[in-house]
Amino acid sequence: MGILAFLASERETVDAALERVLPPNDTWPRRLHEAMRYAVFGGGKRVRPILARVACRAAGGDPDLILEAACALELIHTYSLIHDDLPALDNDSLRRGRPTVHVAYDEPLAILAGDALLTEAFIVLGTHPEGEAMASRRAEACHLVALAVGSRGMVGGQVEDLEATGKAPDAQRLERIHRAKTGALLAASVELGAVLAGVDRSTRQRFAAFGQSLGLAFQIADDILDVTGTAASLGKSPGKDVAAGKLTYPAVYGLAAARQELTRITATLRAEARELEGPRGKLASLVDYIASRDR
Amino acid sequence: MGILAFLASERETVDAALERVLPPNDTWPRRLHEAMRYAVFGGGKRVRPILARVACRAAGGDPDLILEAACALELIHTYSLIHDDLPALDNDSLRRGRPTVHVAYDEPLAILAGDALLTEAFIVLGTHPEGEAMASRRAEACHLVALAVGSRGMVGGQVEDLEATGKAPDAQRLERIHRAKTGALLAASVELGAVLAGVDRSTRQRFAAFGQSLGLAFQIADDILDVTGTAASLGKSPGKDVAAGKLTYPAVYGLAAARQELTRITATLRAEARELEGPRGKLASLVDYIASRDR
Repeated sequence: MGILAFLASERETVDAALERVLPPNDTWPRRLHEAMRYAVFGGGKRVRPILARVACRAAGGDPDLILEAACALELIHTYSLIHDDLPALDNDSLRRGRPTVHVAYDEPLAILAGDALLTEAFIVLGTHPEGEAMASRRAEACHLVALAVGSRGMVGGQVEDLEATGKAPDAQRLERIHRAKTGALLAASVELGAVLAGVDRSTRQRFAAFGQSLGLAFQIADDILDVTGTAASLGKSPGKDVAAGKLTYPAVYGLAAARQELTRITATLRAEARELEGPRGKLASLVDYIASRDR
Repeated sequence: MGILAFLASERETVDAALERVLPPNDTWPRRLHEAMRYAVFGGGKRVRPILARVACRAAGGDPDLILEAACALELIHTYSLIHDDLPALDNDSLRRGRPTVHVAYDEPLAILAGDALLTEAFIVLGTHPEGEAMASRRAEACHLVALAVGSRGMVGGQVEDLEATGKAPDAQRLERIHRAKTGALLAASVELGAVLAGVDRSTRQRFAAFGQSLGLAFQIADDILDVTGTAASLGKSPGKDVAAGKLTYPAVYGLAAARQELTRITATLRAEARELEGPRGKLASLVDYIASRDR
């Protein structure tokens, strides 16, 4: 199976699991559950759950055993988008071509739907994979994911991103933002797959380092796309980061150097992926997909 | 030791643990960590962590082993207050006599500090109590606390509270709001103490049911205080709920009936506490404290 067919099939599997994991629309409180589902089923690529499953297989585990736990990553990603889009933060009214949650519903519900999705992730991670034998992996999963998306990870990156907006380009600050804001959850996705596969400490370390580089590649590609993409290929307006005065890779290093850096990291990642999973895994193809998506 | 001296000593213990658990002010991202600490160290009574510790002892466990995990309850309680106070929700500018987080800092930081405190709770619950033998209790703790404060618990109660505001008194709706908005986290505090003490399923059920009644008593007492308290005894303006058109016990049943119901529940709780812990525990005194605080 080629990578695109593989990703399409994975997306279907993940979507079906998200459908099961999320509280039904017709249960109390209905409007909240509707808003949560509206946000989750808004057309995401499911990169994080897929990454966790592919990493799990690369680490010798069964990706179907971690399907629900992998969905927790998507719930967290969705919560972060809802809160990012709020009027007090990025004030976005469109996301993937649809009204954002605070526009489709209202601002109080958007805040609370984000809170509920973040919380739901830990309901899922606390119970999946099931069974007493998996209990210590579940506890570790809660810890590693929470650490990645808390104040020293994703949320910290959002705070620094806000503080850096409109300021002079600063390479150190850029790296901190990228590592934390987008990189941490992507890195945690890879690490979660390995931890739930039951790897030893040193293998876990390798997967974690791989995930960190992959997160960086993802973000550099995103920054480049903001400059070079079209509205049709992006599904959102290009040039938004530039217009908002955001600190990005092309803004700090220039477009050519950003592309060069992405090529360099991608080559390293591809080689590392082959070592981690052998020649027939999907991690290496996923690296190429992430580094070159939509171009 | 009388109950007030006991509570004062417990508060000190919990505050010292919160100090250790929260990321230091001088670590990245500083402004976020400052805001988190500003909110947590704003003079809370620490009812939830203390309740968890007292329940743990009543269930035959060591409250000192669950000190950090109990702190997670306070982090979640604090996050819920920060988000509740936001302009889009209750729009409160004062909390415990100090400016709320979005006033002392700004709205984006208040949203993100709330997110980070909620997340921090699961960092703590995923790691404490430490050790492989405690792993399945940690995973269960993440699950039970998340379930209590997610869409079917605390956040759901906030959504329904918003929807009910200004509407006609409705007894069924009132009970749903109270059970979820305040009751669920208090019930989870009691249940967490029992689960981390390692009780069997049926004992856990008894503690959970006790916690649910206690949560209800807490909320009825709160509603009564809003009508009968003074600004000095409450530390906030009395009559706020009434003015805001909130659905409360006195609004639905009248003040006399609300008091009667509180007396009835308290008597049942006191008897049940004695059965759960024997004559020398603190659970029964805590019931009296919660049902009659500040009057």
